[in-house]
Amino acid sequence: MINGHGDDLHRYPGRNLINFSSNILSGVDHTPLMEHLARLASLPASYPDPDASALARMLGAEDTVVVTAGAVEAIYLIALAYRGCRSAIVGPTFSEYEDACRLHAHTVSHVVSLSDTTGAEMVWLCNPNNPTGRVTPHATLLAHIKAHPSTLFVVDQAYAPYTTHPLLTPSEAVAAGNVVMLSSLTKRFSVPGLRIGYAVGAPGIMARIKAVRMPWSVNALAIEGACWLLERADRYPVDADSLHAEALRLASAMGEMGIETLPTDCNFILCRLTDGRPAARLKEWLVEHHNILIRDASNFYGLTPSHFRIASQTPAHNDRLINALKQWTTL
Amino acid sequence: MINGHGDDLHRYPGRNLINFSSNILSGVDHTPLMEHLARLASLPASYPDPDASALARMLGAEDTVVVTAGAVEAIYLIALAYRGCRSAIVGPTFSEYEDACRLHAHTVSHVVSLSDTTGAEMVWLCNPNNPTGRVTPHATLLAHIKAHPSTLFVVDQAYAPYTTHPLLTPSEAVAAGNVVMLSSLTKRFSVPGLRIGYAVGAPGIMARIKAVRMPWSVNALAIEGACWLLERADRYPVDADSLHAEALRLASAMGEMGIETLPTDCNFILCRLTDGRPAARLKEWLVEHHNILIRDASNFYGLTPSHFRIASQTPAHNDRLINALKQWTTL
Repeated sequence: MINGHGDDLHRYPGRNLINFSSNILSGVDHTPLMEHLARLASLPASYPDPDASALARMLGAEDTVVVTAGAVEAIYLIALAYRGCRSAIVGPTFSEYEDACRLHAHTVSHVVSLSDTTGAEMVWLCNPNNPTGRVTPHATLLAHIKAHPSTLFVVDQAYAPYTTHPLLTPSEAVAAGNVVMLSSLTKRFSVPGLRIGYAVGAPGIMARIKAVRMPWSVNALAIEGACWLLERADRYPVDADSLHAEALRLASAMGEMGIETLPTDCNFILCRLTDGRPAARLKEWLVEHHNILIRDASNFYGLTPSHFRIASQTPAHNDRLINALKQWTTL
Repeated sequence: MINGHGDDLHRYPGRNLINFSSNILSGVDHTPLMEHLARLASLPASYPDPDASALARMLGAEDTVVVTAGAVEAIYLIALAYRGCRSAIVGPTFSEYEDACRLHAHTVSHVVSLSDTTGAEMVWLCNPNNPTGRVTPHATLLAHIKAHPSTLFVVDQAYAPYTTHPLLTPSEAVAAGNVVMLSSLTKRFSVPGLRIGYAVGAPGIMARIKAVRMPWSVNALAIEGACWLLERADRYPVDADSLHAEALRLASAMGEMGIETLPTDCNFILCRLTDGRPAARLKEWLVEHHNILIRDASNFYGLTPSHFRIASQTPAHNDRLINALKQWTTL
């Protein structure tokens, strides 16, 4: 990790902030999950299965799935397994692709569109994209992947639960043979604290990733918790439609205040202050005066000090953000 | 991870085995820990502090401590941070040093003693050593480190709680300037499922390790659990003296049966069948007939198919192992 990230709630201990800084659905009650884990008091006492085989089978199959400590571990493993590649990163996007690539001696080029990636050995695409919330259309993406069989496409679908647009399926990723699809239980179940994600792809690619990984990176509580959550997925609904509608309402309100927003297909919105003031100042002001945490997006490659990102929350909380921003614009 | 490891209990689901295969004190009741975590039901809902700063401060200081997902993450990070080194590994020992070194293009030499490491840029020493349980005397080690100021010594003290011999202190490691000391909460508190360990060394070395690490490798439950355990360390005594005495009793009983054992300073013993039968067969026979799990040690570099490792347990369980082994020797 070189740059900072959102959800830096841990920097404000004791503050009960409304968290717009993370793209993850908030307000999910994890009491049942934690009570389940507490009933398995012997969990800490044994090493986890280093391959998390049982969880891998729930997620697909052991030879096409690699379970990782969040999707971010998969990003670092892929960069290492394909050390020294010519990588194109479609941005602005999540900074860990670049950090992982640079750490493992990739030659990195930043591009703004899939069609600019010709000549790259590896393409990193976040879809839906963080921080813009845009989705590359399914047919466009699949056609591009098929047209470039000697390029490896890393398609990070961590934010899949937050869009209604069609995305790559695991079987498409496996069948393509030149795709690693990343998924995150973090976003699906709102469990960033657990650190659990996975990669899906053809067995040859998965074997290459497994060959460079350390044992036991996913802890026993995370594996058990993930299995438990997957078995009860219907108790953890994510209403992508409503979240998107709220995001559009937020965007519209901000537009009326003169804050620029980009179109989004998700629950989160990339915004830009047009009054010349830095987003970092807005962030600190919102914490101090309104108990609201947003994401200063100025450290995304290609963005400016005026950019910030917010994820829509409940209508009531969104109203509080709108009112706070209205106050900011009059200062 | 290239080779397998001990504590492969997960390979025997539903079997209630007496676990001699892990060097970790068994029988610790983690109910209070898990009840504490369950009371913090919001833990899964936020990203962990990527630096685990609060825990690092409890363990020393933020600039001299790096908290990792078990000591094994530290091993991989060190190998990466010093990619391409000439590394000497004092063995037979834990296989992850070699796996991590090979992954990150080190030139690896296997040596059997510290005095054979001349010319190495990096020396990997497990102290107390796994699988032998031997401790390199404190004065010998410190003198050797001071005599080779341009060599970086990785001294893995994960098994420190299981010996009464003096070992490097964190302040000695920091002051030396050419040492990374590894510690493991896994062994101290019998929590291999949590994945929590740390590295201690001079700020320059720690900064180099931090620069190559991914964010959030340690999950939020592990960080919270570690803080909680450290605050209550006196409730989790490890009686290294008694464990060692039991290990010596086991060794003596095995010696009488013609099973070779090496001298140990810890709770665990490296053993060798002298009847020509492989340890793998003994392992499967003990599982099948006695509900006992041991560690086939044949995959440690430099050992043979006849080697296995056991960690002493309660006197009653140790007696069961002795009786089972007696039966094996008559087969």
